[in-house]
Amino acid sequence: MTHNIAILGASGYTGAELIRLIAGHSSMQIKALGANSKAGQTIAEVFPHLRHLDLPALVTIEEIDFSEIDLCFCALPHKTSQEVIANLPKDLKIVDLSADFRLRDPEAYAKWYGNPHAALEQQKEAVYGLTEFYREEIKSARLVAGTGCNAATGQFALRPLIEKGVVDLDDIILDLKCAVSGAGRSLKENLLHAELSEGYHAYSLGGTHRHLGEFDQEFSAIAGRPVKVQFTPHLVPANRGILATVYVKGDAEVIHKTLAAAYDAEPFIEVLPMGEAPSTRHIRGSNFCHIGVVADRIDGRAIVVAALDNLTKGSSGQALQNANLMLGIDEVEGLMMAPLFP
Amino acid sequence: MTHNIAILGASGYTGAELIRLIAGHSSMQIKALGANSKAGQTIAEVFPHLRHLDLPALVTIEEIDFSEIDLCFCALPHKTSQEVIANLPKDLKIVDLSADFRLRDPEAYAKWYGNPHAALEQQKEAVYGLTEFYREEIKSARLVAGTGCNAATGQFALRPLIEKGVVDLDDIILDLKCAVSGAGRSLKENLLHAELSEGYHAYSLGGTHRHLGEFDQEFSAIAGRPVKVQFTPHLVPANRGILATVYVKGDAEVIHKTLAAAYDAEPFIEVLPMGEAPSTRHIRGSNFCHIGVVADRIDGRAIVVAALDNLTKGSSGQALQNANLMLGIDEVEGLMMAPLFP
Amino acid sequence: MTHNIAILGASGYTGAELIRLIAGHSSMQIKALGANSKAGQTIAEVFPHLRHLDLPALVTIEEIDFSEIDLCFCALPHKTSQEVIANLPKDLKIVDLSADFRLRDPEAYAKWYGNPHAALEQQKEAVYGLTEFYREEIKSARLVAGTGCNAATGQFALRPLIEKGVVDLDDIILDLKCAVSGAGRSLKENLLHAELSEGYHAYSLGGTHRHLGEFDQEFSAIAGRPVKVQFTPHLVPANRGILATVYVKGDAEVIHKTLAAAYDAEPFIEVLPMGEAPSTRHIRGSNFCHIGVVADRIDGRAIVVAALDNLTKGSSGQALQNANLMLGIDEVEGLMMAPLFP
Amino acid sequence: MTHNIAILGASGYTGAELIRLIAGHSSMQIKALGANSKAGQTIAEVFPHLRHLDLPALVTIEEIDFSEIDLCFCALPHKTSQEVIANLPKDLKIVDLSADFRLRDPEAYAKWYGNPHAALEQQKEAVYGLTEFYREEIKSARLVAGTGCNAATGQFALRPLIEKGVVDLDDIILDLKCAVSGAGRSLKENLLHAELSEGYHAYSLGGTHRHLGEFDQEFSAIAGRPVKVQFTPHLVPANRGILATVYVKGDAEVIHKTLAAAYDAEPFIEVLPMGEAPSTRHIRGSNFCHIGVVADRIDGRAIVVAALDNLTKGSSGQALQNANLMLGIDEVEGLMMAPLFP
Repeated sequence: MTHNIAILGASGYTGAELIRLIAGHSSMQIKALGANSKAGQTIAEVFPHLRHLDLPALVTIEEIDFSEIDLCFCALPHKTSQEVIANLPKDLKIVDLSADFRLRDPEAYAKWYGNPHAALEQQKEAVYGLTEFYREEIKSARLVAGTGCNAATGQFALRPLIEKGVVDLDDIILDLKCAVSGAGRSLKENLLHAELSEGYHAYSLGGTHRHLGEFDQEFSAIAGRPVKVQFTPHLVPANRGILATVYVKGDAEVIHKTLAAAYDAEPFIEVLPMGEAPSTRHIRGSNFCHIGVVADRIDGRAIVVAALDNLTKGSSGQALQNANLMLGIDEVEGLMMAPLFP
Repeated sequence: MTHNIAILGASGYTGAELIRLIAGHSSMQIKALGANSKAGQTIAEVFPHLRHLDLPALVTIEEIDFSEIDLCFCALPHKTSQEVIANLPKDLKIVDLSADFRLRDPEAYAKWYGNPHAALEQQKEAVYGLTEFYREEIKSARLVAGTGCNAATGQFALRPLIEKGVVDLDDIILDLKCAVSGAGRSLKENLLHAELSEGYHAYSLGGTHRHLGEFDQEFSAIAGRPVKVQFTPHLVPANRGILATVYVKGDAEVIHKTLAAAYDAEPFIEVLPMGEAPSTRHIRGSNFCHIGVVADRIDGRAIVVAALDNLTKGSSGQALQNANLMLGIDEVEGLMMAPLFP
Repeated sequence: MTHNIAILGASGYTGAELIRLIAGHSSMQIKALGANSKAGQTIAEVFPHLRHLDLPALVTIEEIDFSEIDLCFCALPHKTSQEVIANLPKDLKIVDLSADFRLRDPEAYAKWYGNPHAALEQQKEAVYGLTEFYREEIKSARLVAGTGCNAATGQFALRPLIEKGVVDLDDIILDLKCAVSGAGRSLKENLLHAELSEGYHAYSLGGTHRHLGEFDQEFSAIAGRPVKVQFTPHLVPANRGILATVYVKGDAEVIHKTLAAAYDAEPFIEVLPMGEAPSTRHIRGSNFCHIGVVADRIDGRAIVVAALDNLTKGSSGQALQNANLMLGIDEVEGLMMAPLFP
Repeated sequence: MTHNIAILGASGYTGAELIRLIAGHSSMQIKALGANSKAGQTIAEVFPHLRHLDLPALVTIEEIDFSEIDLCFCALPHKTSQEVIANLPKDLKIVDLSADFRLRDPEAYAKWYGNPHAALEQQKEAVYGLTEFYREEIKSARLVAGTGCNAATGQFALRPLIEKGVVDLDDIILDLKCAVSGAGRSLKENLLHAELSEGYHAYSLGGTHRHLGEFDQEFSAIAGRPVKVQFTPHLVPANRGILATVYVKGDAEVIHKTLAAAYDAEPFIEVLPMGEAPSTRHIRGSNFCHIGVVADRIDGRAIVVAALDNLTKGSSGQALQNANLMLGIDEVEGLMMAPLFP
């Protein structure tokens, strides 16, 4: 059986990544590609690397006949996404990759994103899309909210530790190193090659990055009380990858065992042997997340390092994993490709 | 039906690329991984990006039971390769990725590689592995010699033009820009990040690069008379990719039509619309080759630009394509993954 | 004696490079920094790497009192530059870094740049700024037109050869590999790190790049008859550097001797020993140009390779060298810093 | 007055950086370049970017006549350095760039470096070379021990804070992002472009990096009691730069004021306005260190970010700054060049 797929926002990086992945999927077919600003163009014009594929031309969202679509990926900017989704058929299965439906509390949304939410009804039914922890809800969901790529990385490192209570909840520091494709295809000076190559730096310091809304929501829910972490992202001269170095207080051996047990049956989460740490070059282009644990020389402190590809496991790969579940397909279908190295 | 595969020289970049590709192949199974210097190690130790795969540990070549192997990829250094292959079972199907069996004339081999050939018998039966042009011979071959990655790129741009006689045979210039993985995983000062990043340069200037042996052999054979091209490779700060800028004398429209016609039915060769030129970012990690043709402002001159991934279409992808043919499998099996962009 | 300097267009890359160089100059002082779009900002806000310098804040051009300025660098976009310069005091010494005064023939300007020239009077008096070949004219010039960075590189490789008639004038090919800072600080998709890193490509193919206007003008003037070269620039993933691979027909030894003789007394042009080729990593951040000559295996053909830093010798360094001459200062003052490697 | 200089270990990156800097120094002249493994070669052969300089050829250390040398820079590997220095004239002024004389306690040296110290006499007289904090001792020192580049970065961020007691001494985390030239020119797999580009990772995790020996020694001395910090370095795909993200507990405003006051008169340390953070692209190739302070959203926590160039302020620039003091020259001579951006 083949499922008909639409992608809205097909001309951005996450859209391109969705097409790449679905092209290798055995039971999905792309029926519509929406991209208002580039409507009328072929995919070969917008993404020459996909020119070998037999795909429909880009159209405006209004031109899409959703009655023939089984599932729609929404890769639009936040705020636009909620406006579009509010007007899509109410029974259409949707995986949204934007930030619009990640936060369950509309006030939290307004605080982090600066505007009131315009699709409160849909927000209520949205399921948070961190597959490994919301699998059952996702299976029966109509609308799944893809997580932030930084938020996913940090949660893979920390959720089992918070749940099992093996780290000090009041002293968690996430120092993230993010590749530039996470910022999308937008034209900003600090994303130019001449600025970024040989130039790396921290940004959104001091707890101002929006993905903190997700950390606060999820970690507090697990712990059953407010949990606030410190989180500093850095932009590094690479295209794909997030490396989270997480500083926690707790017993490193226990932490390692907790993570190993939590992810033992997970197809995409690899916990490395105790004392080893991952590198972004070993997950590039794949849906895998590598996690390592090392004890610090100071007793009672440990470092957890997690690595994933922001466009795959951090975004479009996660979205496809969720779509598989929503459509009753094997969760790993189309996602087992090995990383690209070197 | 599953075909049992062995890879010799599994710890280099082309070995890793073979494993990546075969991991996504529907009817091949890796039974043995040979790597003398790293025998005893697991693949997770040598290539952490492949740790999710269920693969045999590395062994010495002597330890491999070839009686259970259907096809063997040889990703060893040249000279070593011929010595090893001379001692493999005489009925074992082999795809060799080294330079050892590319040149049909033993004297040409000795001239370009500096040592007499040590496996003359095998050299006689070897078929040159440029799939699109030796397809029928490859189907029935026992030993196929993978082409040089630069040699493949230049030939894709030029073979149909030479065959149809639409360019001046005495005035062809190939200016190649090669990514660093083409040099393999060897420890050389000029391959260090600190030397190469922000530093690019020509090398093997003046007609001294060994892949010229292949150009001379193939182009002369097609033309039916000696053809010598100028060829200057450059090392650029990128990991994957070869971009060949080929300067020819001839009518650009005719050249474009000739290439378009030659590759019309080819699954992996994409001839771009007249006037467009390819970029390495659009073929990365894939088995595709993009070719563009542009007319120069000077009448009677044209520029042909070809781009492919040196590790995939230029080496391991080509090898798998040939192996598919040799085993009677669909030629494109395991090779249709879309490029990784960005 | 201290010379008072103004820089118009101070917020772009060539503006920043001028400030970097002048900061190390013994007898120049920056009195005014013009940047209309960023007027009111301090240099520390626009260029944090210059925050240690004691510099005036950015102002609009109208706010500058040119009566106290001895020499003005104009680092504005072409077309804007001619409009601004037409209205500057008629006795003000000016080094223009734009394309506006490079072409002596107004029709050639209109052809290559698409608009009629708006400062014909100034165009008449402008001297072409390739210091090594226009030194005497520059000394007494009021207005010097900085050359294109690609145009400079190609001319350093070719001018002495054309002048001495040691190469075939009808078969010259320049294949250039350019770093991204040459495109300036403009926000274009193909200049993003995610697009350019791991992605390189040819652009302006077929003889459409504007710097050809300079090649045509200069080479024809030297030869005393029309000379048209083939010229294909490529964008590579690096920030600084131009590498020109020039294919010529002629005797390599004679070519090498001709270049060595021509540049023997030049402080910034280094001709490498016969058979050696330069790398961009050896001229980065400096005013030096390295040139190498290699004989091809085909008799009567040679490859000349030239490397320079597009922002220094190709633009702002050249501009300062010219300003030194115009002000009667030692030509090399402020320009002898060694390249930055690695 | 001109001071005669020798550089031992001239063929490594810190040696090249010393030559670059001294070439622009008004009162130093390089009389001898020692490099045992490359003795007999010219500097143009080893470092083509320095070919324009008039320098002596490389020689063995034994060939150098130290009686004519006023000051010797030792840029040798640790362990070799102590053996060489033990045999140099006892009155020769020396700036050592290795790790051999940084730790005052021979047992601490043996613990961190794995061998007993072989020049205990010299170790006793060595002064720790962090100029801004040992200025007076350095002026009268005979032997100055250059600091580790990571150790310098962390100390610039933390020393004033520890001295003034404005941060919790038991909860300091240094997360460093280091460019690859800090690893030197050694041939290691993880330093290859193909491995590092698009691949970044933590290393020496858990408190095993040798520069911790310096942190422990210095911070404990300032505090008057043992201080142990957490320190995790990361290798990122860049050539030059160290970015230290330091997590401390204390009042951010007080921390910012403390740092601003401490460095107010320092020529090379720039404390950014409150709330701003530095980038490595703004200090590249220079002797400057930029420091920023940001308050975290969690009360009582702050992030201090420091950036410097590992080869300049972190190594060879620091060494020259110290040599200036030792020779009675203006401390900033030869070191005020602006950073190279882009």
